Amino acid sequence: MPRARIHVIPTSSPDDVSGLQRLIATKKLDPTRLIAILGKTEGNGCVNDFTRAFAVSELKRVLGSAADDVTLVMSGGTEGGLSPHLVTFEVLDDAGAGPSMAIGAAITRDLLPHEIGTFAQVDSVAETVRATLKSAGIASVDDVHFVQIKCPLLTSDRIAMSDRPTATTDTLKSMGLSRGASALGVGLALEEIDADTARLALLESDVKVWSGRASTSAGVELMGHEMLVLGMSKGWSGPLIVEHAVMTDAIDTDAVRAALERLEIGSRSDLLALFAKAEASTNGQIRGSRHTMLNDSDISSTRHARAMVGGALGGLVGRMDLFVSGGAEHQGPDGGGPVALIAERRG
Amino acid sequence: MPRARIHVIPTSSPDDVSGLQRLIATKKLDPTRLIAILGKTEGNGCVNDFTRAFAVSELKRVLGSAADDVTLVMSGGTEGGLSPHLVTFEVLDDAGAGPSMAIGAAITRDLLPHEIGTFAQVDSVAETVRATLKSAGIASVDDVHFVQIKCPLLTSDRIAMSDRPTATTDTLKSMGLSRGASALGVGLALEEIDADTARLALLESDVKVWSGRASTSAGVELMGHEMLVLGMSKGWSGPLIVEHAVMTDAIDTDAVRAALERLEIGSRSDLLALFAKAEASTNGQIRGSRHTMLNDSDISSTRHARAMVGGALGGLVGRMDLFVSGGAEHQGPDGGGPVALIAERRG
Amino acid sequence: MPRARIHVIPTSSPDDVSGLQRLIATKKLDPTRLIAILGKTEGNGCVNDFTRAFAVSELKRVLGSAADDVTLVMSGGTEGGLSPHLVTFEVLDDAGAGPSMAIGAAITRDLLPHEIGTFAQVDSVAETVRATLKSAGIASVDDVHFVQIKCPLLTSDRIAMSDRPTATTDTLKSMGLSRGASALGVGLALEEIDADTARLALLESDVKVWSGRASTSAGVELMGHEMLVLGMSKGWSGPLIVEHAVMTDAIDTDAVRAALERLEIGSRSDLLALFAKAEASTNGQIRGSRHTMLNDSDISSTRHARAMVGGALGGLVGRMDLFVSGGAEHQGPDGGGPVALIAERRG
Amino acid sequence: MPRARIHVIPTSSPDDVSGLQRLIATKKLDPTRLIAILGKTEGNGCVNDFTRAFAVSELKRVLGSAADDVTLVMSGGTEGGLSPHLVTFEVLDDAGAGPSMAIGAAITRDLLPHEIGTFAQVDSVAETVRATLKSAGIASVDDVHFVQIKCPLLTSDRIAMSDRPTATTDTLKSMGLSRGASALGVGLALEEIDADTARLALLESDVKVWSGRASTSAGVELMGHEMLVLGMSKGWSGPLIVEHAVMTDAIDTDAVRAALERLEIGSRSDLLALFAKAEASTNGQIRGSRHTMLNDSDISSTRHARAMVGGALGGLVGRMDLFVSGGAEHQGPDGGGPVALIAERRG
Repeated sequence: MPRARIHVIPTSSPDDVSGLQRLIATKKLDPTRLIAILGKTEGNGCVNDFTRAFAVSELKRVLGSAADDVTLVMSGGTEGGLSPHLVTFEVLDDAGAGPSMAIGAAITRDLLPHEIGTFAQVDSVAETVRATLKSAGIASVDDVHFVQIKCPLLTSDRIAMSDRPTATTDTLKSMGLSRGASALGVGLALEEIDADTARLALLESDVKVWSGRASTSAGVELMGHEMLVLGMSKGWSGPLIVEHAVMTDAIDTDAVRAALERLEIGSRSDLLALFAKAEASTNGQIRGSRHTMLNDSDISSTRHARAMVGGALGGLVGRMDLFVSGGAEHQGPDGGGPVALIAERRG
Repeated sequence: MPRARIHVIPTSSPDDVSGLQRLIATKKLDPTRLIAILGKTEGNGCVNDFTRAFAVSELKRVLGSAADDVTLVMSGGTEGGLSPHLVTFEVLDDAGAGPSMAIGAAITRDLLPHEIGTFAQVDSVAETVRATLKSAGIASVDDVHFVQIKCPLLTSDRIAMSDRPTATTDTLKSMGLSRGASALGVGLALEEIDADTARLALLESDVKVWSGRASTSAGVELMGHEMLVLGMSKGWSGPLIVEHAVMTDAIDTDAVRAALERLEIGSRSDLLALFAKAEASTNGQIRGSRHTMLNDSDISSTRHARAMVGGALGGLVGRMDLFVSGGAEHQGPDGGGPVALIAERRG
Repeated sequence: MPRARIHVIPTSSPDDVSGLQRLIATKKLDPTRLIAILGKTEGNGCVNDFTRAFAVSELKRVLGSAADDVTLVMSGGTEGGLSPHLVTFEVLDDAGAGPSMAIGAAITRDLLPHEIGTFAQVDSVAETVRATLKSAGIASVDDVHFVQIKCPLLTSDRIAMSDRPTATTDTLKSMGLSRGASALGVGLALEEIDADTARLALLESDVKVWSGRASTSAGVELMGHEMLVLGMSKGWSGPLIVEHAVMTDAIDTDAVRAALERLEIGSRSDLLALFAKAEASTNGQIRGSRHTMLNDSDISSTRHARAMVGGALGGLVGRMDLFVSGGAEHQGPDGGGPVALIAERRG
Repeated sequence: MPRARIHVIPTSSPDDVSGLQRLIATKKLDPTRLIAILGKTEGNGCVNDFTRAFAVSELKRVLGSAADDVTLVMSGGTEGGLSPHLVTFEVLDDAGAGPSMAIGAAITRDLLPHEIGTFAQVDSVAETVRATLKSAGIASVDDVHFVQIKCPLLTSDRIAMSDRPTATTDTLKSMGLSRGASALGVGLALEEIDADTARLALLESDVKVWSGRASTSAGVELMGHEMLVLGMSKGWSGPLIVEHAVMTDAIDTDAVRAALERLEIGSRSDLLALFAKAEASTNGQIRGSRHTMLNDSDISSTRHARAMVGGALGGLVGRMDLFVSGGAEHQGPDGGGPVALIAERRG
């Protein structure tokens, strides 16, 4: 029977792999069982953030050939008080009883450049999410709490090579389109959205259509998708449990508090890790008051949003080693976003 | 019997005085009764933030000669989701019953340049705070919840003119020294600190010595101090009440929640306004996790801190038109800070 | 016979009008003869730059009712070593001999929101430029060296009010479209471009079509265009002369050196003022080497470009009170831009 | 007889080592002959610039054990139009005739933490520079044109470990002190300054005392100094020649033009590489006009200065792959700095 294990490892710089090395050396982490590492690094989280690649480079050096099978998702930007860290995901064998947190991992086929940001991408992601639920032994879409996806983007080369017109010729914009299409794919697979709605949302950039469990980020190093699915399953054992919330806006701590209560944090379980998406609301307001994030030409709105949502969540859960990432197209409501919570059952 | 009245006015830009003008035109605000206006403007809150002066210039234009007696404190920086706004403080006559929120306002004598950042400044502020409590009818130092001070700073000219050595020749540093000395003056007057401790804290820049009710900001336009004191008094009437909390770190929402409970927010009163100080902890950590604010050469740590604390407080109170300002020398514990809350009693 | 006079006035902050006041008080500047003030202020030159409006507000306060007839163009951003300053343009009466620098000023009709960024704007600007040449006594389009235009932009309100679709619904993008259409209008009037080429360039955002004498900036406060035309005319007297250069890229100092030689700077005349446009080349290169301006998410490319071009021009002319502004759509070649030079004949 | 060889290699990102690999693969560069690599990377050049370490990490991976003997100096910050690149320095054997450019490389002893920023550091650097001239066969101090030094800095750990008080407890400040002391050491060795003057300059932070040939940068990875000396020597052969200039301010292109003339660039030699230091003048002025670099809380003054000086030099030499670095304590006059030029003799 599979059992999920995670470690939350603080880092002192983007290339700090000493914590990971120590866990491996002391046999607390088995690199051959690693499925994924999600990490926050202290760059700007935007176009010229090289801290993500630096971290990946050093992690691969440590993991060696084991790295080939590990999904590495580094999210740049630890604005406000967010604390740089890594979260490792392992799958061990165990004889215990469930239901417990299940981990599924998968990759999709490579997209062609002209498919990025289109329904072909939505469809490809949705199909793979469905297959992953099955292989991970997650019985129902309602048991899924988090789907992290690393998706492709367009580069000048890829646009030039494409024999069909691409969805955009703006490489930065392609990141948002790809994140959005991936999120709609998750929503489709988890039956949060139907195909027609997804198709229309894509065409009209309709922020009112979203998945409450998708978290997607674009990377230049792949043309397919790497996927990490977290859910609850009777087929998995161990103390880990997972829940999620959907924040309706950037300060909707009530939604997260309710999820913490479902997890019985503080009474029968302890919070181990938190994953959230942050963004500036496109209407320029939070609870009716004007925010200035979208008009600030000195600091990107994604940086403002991570700092603020990090503060809101930190004020709620009392810690700052939180995976808060930006770029939340079709991931939760406009200005809000999904939050996933992993806890350990006590006793 | 005096009665305090406040208005919280959203602004659409630093020079937006239309909200204030509308209140005056509709007789909801009497400019002859104005004591102070505190405001958040959307600049960087650092050296080259001209939004503060722009706001002051436009407010003076609207208020005309009435402006001479009004303390105008603009705080730059609405990072994260903080919302630009003004808070007006008026004193009206009333026949109602107290105890209610009392407002005291005062100015100190002008300092000489060499006194800035020294115990002479601490002493001058302390003396004036004490006198203000008396004149405002605040019976005990325990009834004081907020002392906002606008204090002087050193400029190259003032340093050159001084016939005695000044505490520093670095003009930016003089702002911190002046804010710190003013805060220690408040602490001394409110009996939070004794004179010897204040003197030593000044010499050693000891962050462990602080006032839990001081909020100070430095401005180039004065050599004395403008002061606004808020407390509770049996001699004042009306529905306004005031409380305060001291956050021990940037995410200490528990302290603020306790203050909200003392105010009976949600049961017998409504929150009207919130004033808080934010800063990055000098030890580089929040609850044991590393933050990156002090090493970021792209975004000032004061900007990070306002965004984060704005998020933490917004997540708690459910709104973003909060007066969160930076530069918290000797104002609350290192990395934390004082928070003042004004509410209106119901029914 | 008209005579042009200019003053270059250093400023110590965006609201510093003391230099202007001093010139007025000492009768060196006659506010009733003022046609235009162009100024550099020390904001970020992007969306949330309030230093421009602050400067305009204070200038209007000083000029009083005379301000109504004065074109005020503030350009934000003094990156690198650029020095904040104002340049005043007056027209006096004189009996001297020409040819000398002529100044023309005009305003166009107000556009409707749906006209912004379209050929209707190009046409309106072109027509008014032609009329202005005639009224200013500039005999030939070849005698024109600089056309500064302040053009309108779209706001959310204007887009909402429009009964026809606007060229874009992105307010930031509307600034670029309006600057570009205005520049094409100048090019059309000065016979640098024909109407069909302008029309096509507009549709295809073709950076290879440009005016070598247009300098345009968008402002929220108008729906028409304010225009300042500088050229040489036999009908004008006085010592001022004007020339221009077109930089083919950001370091093309050769082109400017040639213009300085045409003005005989250093032998028979002295440089008084310089106006230039700066931008990052869209191909990401300067003389075949990669630049990083377009990928920097911390500093806007317009800020990088002003700093660099300011350095290149400062290194050539030996001073930093230069009017270098960003946003050079259809103003000079991609990555380069027009430069206008005003000098005083000696002796 | 030794012969110096350099390659200027453009990079497409901080970790781009493909150009270096290609030169090695095609036998155009012999890694066993490598002495040093100087590079510009596209980070912010300040505290949290990880692009330098990322580049070093990838270069070491490519060079393998050969890297141990190679001085790697990465300078962050390609503001304005500066272009990221590497410059490799090799020493080959040759039978040709001199005088030609000579390369000396050396390391000093490790400093103790309390020696950083003191005369002990000045002395250690000076001694090693003298020894290096001798070993490199540079006959006179007048033949030296460039001394690049990588020097140590204080970290919290080093300060804590020190059994004697350190020159500062501010780690950022220690970088400036170390750069300054290293530069004074160069000045002492090259007989630009005497020991008493150096000692006094150190104590009083006197910006008027400087070396016109030192270029120093601080790095966390060493406690001694790595040194690269470039000069002319009869004992060296090959086509490379080197000169230097001292810019008196940020736009002093005249000084560099004179050095280019000494090299006979354009007639008998071609410019291969340029190394310069940039900084904002501490008096806040350039040629009498106010600059705003030191008051900008959004962009570090070092970033402004690199952009501007890059523009000034690019406008002069017509290219942007220039090694312009910041932090010029005691390296050239206040606001100016040393410039070194490597050229190839023609035919």
